[in-house]
Amino acid sequence: MSDALAPLFDALKAEFADRFLTSNAAREHHGSGESHLPAAWPDAVVMVETTEEVATVLRACTAHRVSVIPFGAGSSLEGQIHAPLGGISIDMSAMNAILSVREEDMDCTVQCGVTRQDLNEHLRATGLFFPVDLGAHATLGGMAATRASGTTAVRFGSMRDLVLGMTVVMPDGEIMHTGGRARKSSAGYDLTRLMVGSEGTLGIITELSLRLAGIPEASQTAMCSFETIDDATETVVMALQCGLALNRIELADTVQMHAINRYSKTDLPEYPTLWIELTGNAVTVENDMDILEGLADNARQFERAANADDAARIWRIRHSALYAARALRPGIKGISTDVCVPISQLPACISQIQAVIATTSIIAPLIGHVGDGNFHLVLLYDPEDATEVREAQHISKTLVTMAIEMGGTCTGEHGVGLGKKAYLQAEHGSALGVMRRIKRALDPDNIMNPSKIFDL
Amino acid sequence: MSDALAPLFDALKAEFADRFLTSNAAREHHGSGESHLPAAWPDAVVMVETTEEVATVLRACTAHRVSVIPFGAGSSLEGQIHAPLGGISIDMSAMNAILSVREEDMDCTVQCGVTRQDLNEHLRATGLFFPVDLGAHATLGGMAATRASGTTAVRFGSMRDLVLGMTVVMPDGEIMHTGGRARKSSAGYDLTRLMVGSEGTLGIITELSLRLAGIPEASQTAMCSFETIDDATETVVMALQCGLALNRIELADTVQMHAINRYSKTDLPEYPTLWIELTGNAVTVENDMDILEGLADNARQFERAANADDAARIWRIRHSALYAARALRPGIKGISTDVCVPISQLPACISQIQAVIATTSIIAPLIGHVGDGNFHLVLLYDPEDATEVREAQHISKTLVTMAIEMGGTCTGEHGVGLGKKAYLQAEHGSALGVMRRIKRALDPDNIMNPSKIFDL
Repeated sequence: MSDALAPLFDALKAEFADRFLTSNAAREHHGSGESHLPAAWPDAVVMVETTEEVATVLRACTAHRVSVIPFGAGSSLEGQIHAPLGGISIDMSAMNAILSVREEDMDCTVQCGVTRQDLNEHLRATGLFFPVDLGAHATLGGMAATRASGTTAVRFGSMRDLVLGMTVVMPDGEIMHTGGRARKSSAGYDLTRLMVGSEGTLGIITELSLRLAGIPEASQTAMCSFETIDDATETVVMALQCGLALNRIELADTVQMHAINRYSKTDLPEYPTLWIELTGNAVTVENDMDILEGLADNARQFERAANADDAARIWRIRHSALYAARALRPGIKGISTDVCVPISQLPACISQIQAVIATTSIIAPLIGHVGDGNFHLVLLYDPEDATEVREAQHISKTLVTMAIEMGGTCTGEHGVGLGKKAYLQAEHGSALGVMRRIKRALDPDNIMNPSKIFDL
Repeated sequence: MSDALAPLFDALKAEFADRFLTSNAAREHHGSGESHLPAAWPDAVVMVETTEEVATVLRACTAHRVSVIPFGAGSSLEGQIHAPLGGISIDMSAMNAILSVREEDMDCTVQCGVTRQDLNEHLRATGLFFPVDLGAHATLGGMAATRASGTTAVRFGSMRDLVLGMTVVMPDGEIMHTGGRARKSSAGYDLTRLMVGSEGTLGIITELSLRLAGIPEASQTAMCSFETIDDATETVVMALQCGLALNRIELADTVQMHAINRYSKTDLPEYPTLWIELTGNAVTVENDMDILEGLADNARQFERAANADDAARIWRIRHSALYAARALRPGIKGISTDVCVPISQLPACISQIQAVIATTSIIAPLIGHVGDGNFHLVLLYDPEDATEVREAQHISKTLVTMAIEMGGTCTGEHGVGLGKKAYLQAEHGSALGVMRRIKRALDPDNIMNPSKIFDL
């Protein structure tokens, strides 16, 4: 701890007692998370329990010009919770109360530290659920802050689309309520959407009102393989244009299918493969699956789940993908790319990056949320091997550059954090300057998660 | 014209020649529009044709500290195009080119002056359409600027949900591109959503990339009447929870049904009535209409359209509603309220405001986009009659106050303009201060449609 922090530490210790932590264990935990980036510890951690406590911390940090970094579950992938400039990590995980569920309105209000799994557990008896479906065990506040999405965005959109309103604490400790509970509003600037995806750089989200959906009566699942990614994409485009009751459309490439066969000891075709889930009422999903099978006349193989157990088996294969990928190089965690492009560009984007990968020693299985044009390559490289590091960086950079040139984005769902900062100028041009002006207007002392998304 | 404007006028005249207009006819047209508010003329009008020309006008207006008010079709209802402080009306209607349509990506890019009708006409052969459906013949730029929605928001959302990216000219003439063409992105602040609904107070939207939807293969329509608004709402809630393929759910109250019978010489039940449209493939809409009819077991009458002609007849009844309402008091145009509340609050909101209306001499038929909790009362009052003006203002104010207390908003789809400014403090509290800070950061000279949404 630098001497400059002493007065702030004294103030926070007086207020939070044993919920103010300066141990190396706490600092390490809060400065690492699941990102591939090197850890960057905060100077201390405060475990908050209420919106008012968040305001207390922010007022103190503003008074002492010390950075604040919000922390939910630590599952962000681009260093969003890192503290490269030190400062106070504000741990929201104890703010995990589900405040209200309004079944008739199909909405709920939760504290930011509630995870989506906990919310869905709580909702089960209501016949409703919260439809954003990630791999990570993330908090809803963190998911909003990074504009997360996942496998069901093709049906329900991302956090952008599902947050009705928020309570946000601004850097000076002012508590702001954005949005409301109306399904739509034209009353002024959309501060809810401004906060979604702002990664804690403008304010700290402490409560969220969220749209819910009805748990569907029925679902149908299919898994089908194609000669080429182009063929698979063509089927997806037709299914989207027909407005079928798609809930998930996931894509794996041949490298990923090979990894799955090795890992699961299966004998699946090692060709580009789609997993497709339709949800709705029984008649709709049956009928739409018939239509889909007709559209997929260029598939090598179209396997329709015979029943719920069979569907679960097919989805287990998909869910094993990341583990299967990593098992190709035991001990190597890999990092995940995250570009998203217009779907018409997807085959070209994938084939061009596969050509680049082929010039390197890197193995990089692909999984995609293909209905959105978003896909992840798991770049399996050894962080101790300088050549592999260079090759992985080359792949990542080439992919992002290509995606932006195709009208896409450097990050579909993981956010910018520290990891994607270098690409925002190319993606946004002069709009990046407008983002900076908003940042300066709302956080004039630059204490809110500084150095994330962009530098000032 | 004040002398202070002379140098700006000279500059604009030199640049735009006969597209720079100072005639009273042009000023009146651009300072009135369809709003009920008293006209407020701009000092002059510029007819622009390109984004660069918009930048030229903004640079000149910034240099001379003169206000700029964007004008599309003049169909806004809350005085968005009025010039209470004078200034330059910048008419975008000639920027009406459809720049590209990408069928595979189900998106398009248009100039801001394209109307949704023109776009849909252009798209017809592609099997795609743009799904926001308003009563007004509005431009897409204006619809984005006011965050418009209409009858199909229950299915497709509002302009908020359907704009992928924009070209926006900022007050200093800088041309900014927001968003992109990826279906989702987590790359920084959501400037697209900040501009949608900002009513020209931050920048001028000159181009938009929009999501499109597939024209559905089939539709089914029903019209059903209920003893009470509560019964009608209950059916709507169940239909929403079941995830039926709803495209439109419109509500009329008994006063509106009476107006329709008088106007159309029909004999429809004078009870709360729903119009419901399901769209999708033939099997889905047939099946979902069966489910819906089962859910609506509390309806007095459930009339299912026998065929497409019959459905068209039923929707003509709905589309005649505004004319029927006005015909109750010939010569009186009326003004439209626009609150939106959580759907659970809708019956109470409507019955409480009807009780208030009953204490006045005002006739006020109701039409609602009930799936969103948004409804309009047409307040038929004589603007020359002081008592009626006072009563209409009392109804409008009471309704907004009630809606905000119920967790709703003063405006679901018409925007704030001048007409709803008085309510934003009650609706947004300290968030209004944050909106003002953003305004000051992006438009430091306050030249962009000043005095709209809020005063500084």
